[in-house]
Amino acid sequence: MNEIRRIGNSRRWADVVIYAGVARWVEVAEDITADTTGQIEQVLRQINATLALVQSDRERLLEALIFLADLGDASLLNQLWDQWVEGGNPPIRACVQAGLSAGLRVEMVLTAAVSERL
Amino acid sequence: MNEIRRIGNSRRWADVVIYAGVARWVEVAEDITADTTGQIEQVLRQINATLALVQSDRERLLEALIFLADLGDASLLNQLWDQWVEGGNPPIRACVQAGLSAGLRVEMVLTAAVSERL
Amino acid sequence: MNEIRRIGNSRRWADVVIYAGVARWVEVAEDITADTTGQIEQVLRQINATLALVQSDRERLLEALIFLADLGDASLLNQLWDQWVEGGNPPIRACVQAGLSAGLRVEMVLTAAVSERL
Repeated sequence: MNEIRRIGNSRRWADVVIYAGVARWVEVAEDITADTTGQIEQVLRQINATLALVQSDRERLLEALIFLADLGDASLLNQLWDQWVEGGNPPIRACVQAGLSAGLRVEMVLTAAVSERL
Repeated sequence: MNEIRRIGNSRRWADVVIYAGVARWVEVAEDITADTTGQIEQVLRQINATLALVQSDRERLLEALIFLADLGDASLLNQLWDQWVEGGNPPIRACVQAGLSAGLRVEMVLTAAVSERL
Repeated sequence: MNEIRRIGNSRRWADVVIYAGVARWVEVAEDITADTTGQIEQVLRQINATLALVQSDRERLLEALIFLADLGDASLLNQLWDQWVEGGNPPIRACVQAGLSAGLRVEMVLTAAVSERL
């Protein structure tokens, strides 16, 4: 059986779970006093950092499931996202509006390919 | 490391990502001027087409995460879905109401098994 | 190609789908006349039962995607969840508010590691 590797466990959840060549994690802005632009920018930077942590990169993202507190922010998301993905190997992406925890403007569930030996 | 294969890349997202024997993709109706019935029928036909593209089939779907713009459409979805799955080997399925992009009545995130050698 | 194993097929969906060392399933309370506390408790017990069925356990959960009918129930969810995960190897977790089928207070999409040979 493949080993499960976790990074950044709290009691309630793991920050990242790696299994069978796939890393999974959830990203919300660390500073939720930021406005929507700031929160999206933070989340995208945090994804870069998590990808580096699991020795993956933006071109090995498999899936992004994006929840926006207000779908009216979608065009702003797209503008920042388009600059960020740039490499030409984006993941699949779904984006819907859902109720998020107080203060959050965006929450993303990410899946990326990592080395089986990680 | 398993290779990642993408189909139908735009700048913003891939239409399909295949990795480690699993295809992932998001389906929304191509013609969003259609009513709910029309959009659900389109999405189910589009799933058939994507499955054919990745050399999989309806009996190798693993998971369907369904977002409806209006949960009042669930009985309609179920009627069309039940005719469509028919084979007796359906995926797991979650169905919730969420805010969708303008005009969309339904959005599905799909996962299917494909050949490791694909 | 890895085999797909399904448990508890109805016409509409499978209760559990197992593929490539990963089990996927959706959990809602079996008795939806129960209040929120009762439904969350049921869902957590049902997860234990499903994990046992696929010869996995709570420390091999990979991901929990949680939909609450009312995000105001999040603190209650967290209280029950924290008692339940306890082992120190929790999954990644996202929790958002979405519209759920009539009577449901919570719906969870779960992913767990299982033996490749299961």
